[in-house]
Amino acid sequence: MPRLSPLSLKQVTLEDGFWSERLRTNRDVTLPYEHGCCKKTGRLDAWKQDWKPGRPNKPHIFWDSDVAKWLEAVAYELARRPGRRLYALARPVVDRILKAQQPDGYINTHFTTVCPGERFTNLTGNHELYCAGHLIEAAVAWFEATGERDFLEALERYADLLGRTFGRGRGQVRGYDGHEEIELALLRLYRATGTRRHLELARYFVDERGRRPSYFEAEAKARGGAGRWALEYYQAHKPVRAQFTAEGHAVRAMYLYTAMAGLALETGDAGLRRACRKLWANVTERRMYVTGGVGSSAQGERFTVDYDLPNESAYSESCAAIGLIFWARKMFQLERDGKFADELERALYNNVPASVGRDGRTFFYANPLAVTPYFRNGHGDHIRPRRQPWFGCACCPPNIARLLASLPSYVASSGGGDLWVHLYAAGTLAHEVGGRRVVLRVRTRYPWDGRVVFAVDAEQPAAFTLALRIPGWCRGAKLNVNGKPVNLARAVTKGYAKLKRIWKRGDKVELDLPMPPERVYAHPKVQANAGRVALRRGPLVYALEQADNGAEIEALTLPPGAKIVAKARRELGGFVALRAKGLRAPVLGGKNGSLYAARPAAARPAPLAFVPYGLWGNRGAGEMAVWVRE
Amino acid sequence: MPRLSPLSLKQVTLEDGFWSERLRTNRDVTLPYEHGCCKKTGRLDAWKQDWKPGRPNKPHIFWDSDVAKWLEAVAYELARRPGRRLYALARPVVDRILKAQQPDGYINTHFTTVCPGERFTNLTGNHELYCAGHLIEAAVAWFEATGERDFLEALERYADLLGRTFGRGRGQVRGYDGHEEIELALLRLYRATGTRRHLELARYFVDERGRRPSYFEAEAKARGGAGRWALEYYQAHKPVRAQFTAEGHAVRAMYLYTAMAGLALETGDAGLRRACRKLWANVTERRMYVTGGVGSSAQGERFTVDYDLPNESAYSESCAAIGLIFWARKMFQLERDGKFADELERALYNNVPASVGRDGRTFFYANPLAVTPYFRNGHGDHIRPRRQPWFGCACCPPNIARLLASLPSYVASSGGGDLWVHLYAAGTLAHEVGGRRVVLRVRTRYPWDGRVVFAVDAEQPAAFTLALRIPGWCRGAKLNVNGKPVNLARAVTKGYAKLKRIWKRGDKVELDLPMPPERVYAHPKVQANAGRVALRRGPLVYALEQADNGAEIEALTLPPGAKIVAKARRELGGFVALRAKGLRAPVLGGKNGSLYAARPAAARPAPLAFVPYGLWGNRGAGEMAVWVRE
Repeated sequence: MPRLSPLSLKQVTLEDGFWSERLRTNRDVTLPYEHGCCKKTGRLDAWKQDWKPGRPNKPHIFWDSDVAKWLEAVAYELARRPGRRLYALARPVVDRILKAQQPDGYINTHFTTVCPGERFTNLTGNHELYCAGHLIEAAVAWFEATGERDFLEALERYADLLGRTFGRGRGQVRGYDGHEEIELALLRLYRATGTRRHLELARYFVDERGRRPSYFEAEAKARGGAGRWALEYYQAHKPVRAQFTAEGHAVRAMYLYTAMAGLALETGDAGLRRACRKLWANVTERRMYVTGGVGSSAQGERFTVDYDLPNESAYSESCAAIGLIFWARKMFQLERDGKFADELERALYNNVPASVGRDGRTFFYANPLAVTPYFRNGHGDHIRPRRQPWFGCACCPPNIARLLASLPSYVASSGGGDLWVHLYAAGTLAHEVGGRRVVLRVRTRYPWDGRVVFAVDAEQPAAFTLALRIPGWCRGAKLNVNGKPVNLARAVTKGYAKLKRIWKRGDKVELDLPMPPERVYAHPKVQANAGRVALRRGPLVYALEQADNGAEIEALTLPPGAKIVAKARRELGGFVALRAKGLRAPVLGGKNGSLYAARPAAARPAPLAFVPYGLWGNRGAGEMAVWVRE
Repeated sequence: MPRLSPLSLKQVTLEDGFWSERLRTNRDVTLPYEHGCCKKTGRLDAWKQDWKPGRPNKPHIFWDSDVAKWLEAVAYELARRPGRRLYALARPVVDRILKAQQPDGYINTHFTTVCPGERFTNLTGNHELYCAGHLIEAAVAWFEATGERDFLEALERYADLLGRTFGRGRGQVRGYDGHEEIELALLRLYRATGTRRHLELARYFVDERGRRPSYFEAEAKARGGAGRWALEYYQAHKPVRAQFTAEGHAVRAMYLYTAMAGLALETGDAGLRRACRKLWANVTERRMYVTGGVGSSAQGERFTVDYDLPNESAYSESCAAIGLIFWARKMFQLERDGKFADELERALYNNVPASVGRDGRTFFYANPLAVTPYFRNGHGDHIRPRRQPWFGCACCPPNIARLLASLPSYVASSGGGDLWVHLYAAGTLAHEVGGRRVVLRVRTRYPWDGRVVFAVDAEQPAAFTLALRIPGWCRGAKLNVNGKPVNLARAVTKGYAKLKRIWKRGDKVELDLPMPPERVYAHPKVQANAGRVALRRGPLVYALEQADNGAEIEALTLPPGAKIVAKARRELGGFVALRAKGLRAPVLGGKNGSLYAARPAAARPAPLAFVPYGLWGNRGAGEMAVWVRE
């Protein structure tokens, strides 16, 4: 079976009402803004490698990765639409990186300037290969966007240094990084260059992880102390093929699983595939928020135990949901099952848009599912979350930027001439069948409306399968080809309706995905959601916000029978709101002010208005709730 | 109005079915056992004051208080029933303490042996006056039980040293202790001795607390660093008369409020009384568990914010509920309102019996209201709570012991010949009217049954008011005097039915307190209990335990209409269980195994059996829940 690959950024255009504005803001506001942040905080000047003790802006161990992710984001923009302004911002940064490379290929501002003697001595905690991985990803993206080879070649030299340094051979260090990233980056480098040793090095890093005796324990012993975190934190408690539950730091886990799935895809490794399937089931059936967020605990930014999904203290790091998206894409390539695209869509349409403000210059690191007047952070402090302009540990802002910049590549895949459409958005999809270009024009108001119309524009009639995803959330989908209904019961396998025919110019496919507002219930073991309901419509999960419903959101109830009505609104760039007749428990101080009573507090009618979770927090800091009492 | 005082331990006998076994175990098992623990851990030998650096069992700053509370408990036992065995255990401990006293009156094993130069230099953190207070309480109780004056006189000399050391005069230290206790102890010393300067010193400590500039901040500055906790932790953020919400460490808060109410009682201070009323409302209407536990956060063992009452992570320290009982008693004396006795009863019949095992030698420090398979402690570790034989910080075990040993004194109060009965338990109550002894014999199976019969046995007819508490939880109480019904609508004020008459031998009072099983609902702002219900019967709050209901308690539901039936059981020393027809959500792996679904999980019938919360955890470590989904 020919391998499926995402359509490239050059093959997809997006002109839809949900993403276009976000992508434009990302390009015109976020990317220049983040360049400014990197400049102001010393992240760019760090590449001069002239820092001396006593001076400000000491290069931090993970600064290189922030700049690398920003460069990667810029590269995606340049791939979609070459532009002078962004190129002029970014190319000098590439030049600085190239100049900073050491004669042996090594690149790292922290270890070159702050502690030159400590290269590769603390893989557990120092993010050294993590930074290398992000630089590799940036270099690959830069090459694919611009065709310029110098950045890629520099990183290949660095990868070769890593290949000489790490491994099971004599004189080699038998280690791996405390923060996974290098593994998936090396797989990308292999894809881009075809150089087999990069694949082998990725395989070594994945295989070595979690073996006994533990490299991290040996490192800690050599440093004369215990490590800060348990081995689970780094997914280093077991060999990866024996890991069946998602443990430890969520972003690390997602990046590792992405690499494992990627490696299984490249090598056909059955053990990795099996572990990936089990890990996927564990994450999506036990440890994921309804918004696609993962890693529920702020302490250790980590996975905890099954069904432990508190709403108010949800960590649900922006980077972790992005990692889930990376992993889901690889899992889809491996399994060709719509269930992976379903979760990709969940995270992409909910957690991701929430993680950045509509202004493009404020960001959430954590993505709570509730904010009450009593909200407390991990230290027990009483706070009201609002998006921040930047972070000391600034992994999220450039990660969000690179995901949004590359978003069109998530829409569809092709392989052997077939076209698989995963996400529905207005625009065009181009692919090749037998060397000839076929274009699909997509008209839709998705996710506000479930009708999607495809018009085929092929140079010549072309035989291929058009596989259209029927989302897992959808019941009663309908599909017509040139006006004739398709029997979906027969056409759909693993979440995709497969239309195999000779397509010609003028062919029209009409897909109807009914998206009535629906109630969502959590598994009974999710204690946080006992007696609670969430609303969704299509791929979007909704939330009650103080801006629409007043304060004391927790006092609101959505009765079981209440009708939920969808209504278009112009605010916030235009969206579909959900409305219902709800109830409000009496406020304090009244007759029902007692703490415990023999009767539940009486309630009075209250109109409820819900906004998509992805839009919350764009109208001031206030209370919010995804899960409402029913 | 004559002051009301609790009946002394010599005036009350208890022969009931709820407390008798507990009190016997406390005397025969717990007190000797705790003596052994104090011996084994070095707490007793510390009084030899011969510890030297390098030796084991370095006297800890709060060890003196553990021994003092144990002595106080023994004193109560001796007051109720002089006994050689306990006296022989305890008197040598008293002797050691007397021998350990310094020429100037100072007593403290830690500061005398470990750091002799640091006396009174770190009031914020070192529990020095806290230990002094517990020694004073022990000495007062010892004197009242045995009539021996030496211990009391020694502690008066120590109190006088404190009076010379602390205050607003020239050369005095204008400080107060980081852990309140000395204040209430000095008030007790004043009550026992009539010596006014002890009252004045208590008043100074209470008044000085929280003033600006902050003594604790000055101390921290002098030590050259910041304090570990914010001033709220010590209730030192404001002058006490301006404190209207319960803040900081819960035990500290309870001891302070007890002292504030006690001081208001002694001095008529209106500002203190006002603050106490507001604090009481804040605690009991916003920050108290249905079991009478207070201080919901393990981090800082403290109060947090209104309605923040998580069940599984409930800290609800055993000592804090005991402190609430102390405070409630003082509040009752101050206000003569049954609402204070209601909360006293709540804590006494629920949190307190849960805090010690029926074996008398295992203890809970924290008292959760739920245990699931996913229970995690404050460090995020996954644990299953079970009672412990002892603690490094062993404040709770001897605190529980002294409360139980003194429990009969909580049953009734007298003043000016009137008798106020607060708690109903089989036994006898003796008081004096005009110098003549009047005895009430009480027959009841309370709290298992609400019928209480009083038989008056007076030497001569005596005119006094018998005030019987009509519990706040009770609806439809009935009262007969010699077979004639009393109109309770007229006779009851502030929760007490007042029967004023000339009582003579043979008079019979019959009180009927209907106690059908009832549902309890939490205030809508208590998020943890959204959609949940608790059961109570009379003063007892109930819980579902794994021992009766199998694992996965969280999957159980008590439907709104389900009938709840009370049923006597022999197990666990005999108790009344509650039963209902409930539902169990399907277990994992079935059709409803998905994390999020468009329909709530279907359920199948499951019989539910509830035990009193005070008895939970006596049949192995398992799951438990007070608040059940409805």
